[in-house]
Amino acid sequence: MSVAQPLRVTPIGAREIDAAREYFLGLHTRLSDAWKSLDESSQQRRDEWQRPVGDVLSGSGRLSLIENGTTFDRAGVAFSDVSGARLPAAASERHTELAGQPFRAMGTSCVVHPVNPYAPTSHANVRLFTAREGEVWWFGGGFDLTPVYAFDEDARTWHEAARAACAPAGPRAYSVLKDACDKYFYLPHRGETRGIGGLFADDLNDTTAEIGGSFEHCFALIRRIGDSYLETYVSLVKHRMATAFGTREQDFQRLRRGRYVEFNLAFDRGTRFGLQSQARTESLLMSMPPRAEWRYDYHPAPGTPEAALADYLKPRDWLAS
Amino acid sequence: MSVAQPLRVTPIGAREIDAAREYFLGLHTRLSDAWKSLDESSQQRRDEWQRPVGDVLSGSGRLSLIENGTTFDRAGVAFSDVSGARLPAAASERHTELAGQPFRAMGTSCVVHPVNPYAPTSHANVRLFTAREGEVWWFGGGFDLTPVYAFDEDARTWHEAARAACAPAGPRAYSVLKDACDKYFYLPHRGETRGIGGLFADDLNDTTAEIGGSFEHCFALIRRIGDSYLETYVSLVKHRMATAFGTREQDFQRLRRGRYVEFNLAFDRGTRFGLQSQARTESLLMSMPPRAEWRYDYHPAPGTPEAALADYLKPRDWLAS
Repeated sequence: MSVAQPLRVTPIGAREIDAAREYFLGLHTRLSDAWKSLDESSQQRRDEWQRPVGDVLSGSGRLSLIENGTTFDRAGVAFSDVSGARLPAAASERHTELAGQPFRAMGTSCVVHPVNPYAPTSHANVRLFTAREGEVWWFGGGFDLTPVYAFDEDARTWHEAARAACAPAGPRAYSVLKDACDKYFYLPHRGETRGIGGLFADDLNDTTAEIGGSFEHCFALIRRIGDSYLETYVSLVKHRMATAFGTREQDFQRLRRGRYVEFNLAFDRGTRFGLQSQARTESLLMSMPPRAEWRYDYHPAPGTPEAALADYLKPRDWLAS
Repeated sequence: MSVAQPLRVTPIGAREIDAAREYFLGLHTRLSDAWKSLDESSQQRRDEWQRPVGDVLSGSGRLSLIENGTTFDRAGVAFSDVSGARLPAAASERHTELAGQPFRAMGTSCVVHPVNPYAPTSHANVRLFTAREGEVWWFGGGFDLTPVYAFDEDARTWHEAARAACAPAGPRAYSVLKDACDKYFYLPHRGETRGIGGLFADDLNDTTAEIGGSFEHCFALIRRIGDSYLETYVSLVKHRMATAFGTREQDFQRLRRGRYVEFNLAFDRGTRFGLQSQARTESLLMSMPPRAEWRYDYHPAPGTPEAALADYLKPRDWLAS
């Protein structure tokens, strides 16, 4: 994914860009509706926002959020479509030659923190960047799962879905995107991954080695990522949301959420870029868990279910039989 | 403070370096004892650590910590004395010519999060860097106060102490270090300072404009900063620790602690440098509040004591009569 090569991307036009926007908007609605249907008694807040058209960044977005719900401590979905006069360097590791040029970025992202510590936290994001009015374009996207208590069965379900979503994009697509996910969601100071990973694609276009292809090819992969996330994560939450738990599990959940905060604020490129630019802070920090905890030199007692999590926080072939 | 100028620092020897170490160690003990005396019924953990001598970073340190105490949710003091083969670029904004050279860094730092939301959080740090065996040296240090509920009286006490600590260093010292503190402890995405500030000195030596001087001059300022912090903060905690509070104040405290986490993980240079280097994670993240909270688009109702805090989160002349 990070192989630098000269850009000879096939230009796209308004038709392709509109189709992507349509998909992202539709996914936003489908995700919002899905969380609502899993947490019917709670209120879902829906916000629309628009930024004044200026020379730096303009655009619009919408956001749905359940907070302090029955099923979800927080379940947020954000769609945004912004244009800017100068592409920030942080937006692409690969297309450095485009830094400072006019761009458009749109996509849908989603972070879900369930109430039940046995139901995993998840994150997904699908996006399209274009520069020079579509002359250059690249998709990005992926999903990753962060269990508090990990289950082999869930990890397998998650990665089977990931592999299936990638399969039509070529035989190497799953392993390339799975490895990129393990590498990205990593906390070096803790020596652990954020969770059990999933897929992560950063600069996906028709020049991308092994998994790239036409706009339609890449867009289809991105759609499969979005669709697969929705279906798979809903099934995992349904499977775990009724498991009995007590204060012990909640306590461990808050500590693990501390690690989630550490990753988002200190390492996540999107969050860091957003904090330093003009991003809408409230949308950006929607990804934060509602509550987090830190305890000095905390180590779960050996042999406990809490200690078992450590084994899941290193890259592994989850589909090995 | 940030004026770049050629370095013609007067070299120091082992005697000066030992004297600084002595002071930092003594301050560590005095601060640890002070927190313990304010929270006698709680357990204070004392750790000593040593890092294997390697070519990158070696040294030792000690740490005292009260966690989940009666007076303090967390009160930590850390002393460390580390030497390295190559000074990290992040260690000095000014002495960029020293990056990659052998160095030694020692100091004491302290973060206190009281249980009582009416008692402010505080942070202090005093440190000495030397490079090329004392041929080049600079002190750093300061203290800052982060109230959850702010009081003019406390802000005045705090800044009077800051001014008094600076006075012998020259007529401009207080305003230079006070402004540097306001500038450093700032959350751009929130448009607010972390708290009501205090003092912040980054690269203090005998070439530092307006407030520099001999090693003894600078060391004396650093000692006054350390001593003054101890005395002043203890008096503020004593003054506020018995104020009655309820869940409303605790709730606001957790939300404000979320901002503290945002600053530490996303902006604080020391924390960021530590996370990306080989620092001891547990010592580094001792600064985190034990619990923090995030709520989407949270704004305290106008006219409430919670809303009043916003007025305190912008630079102000606290000593104007």
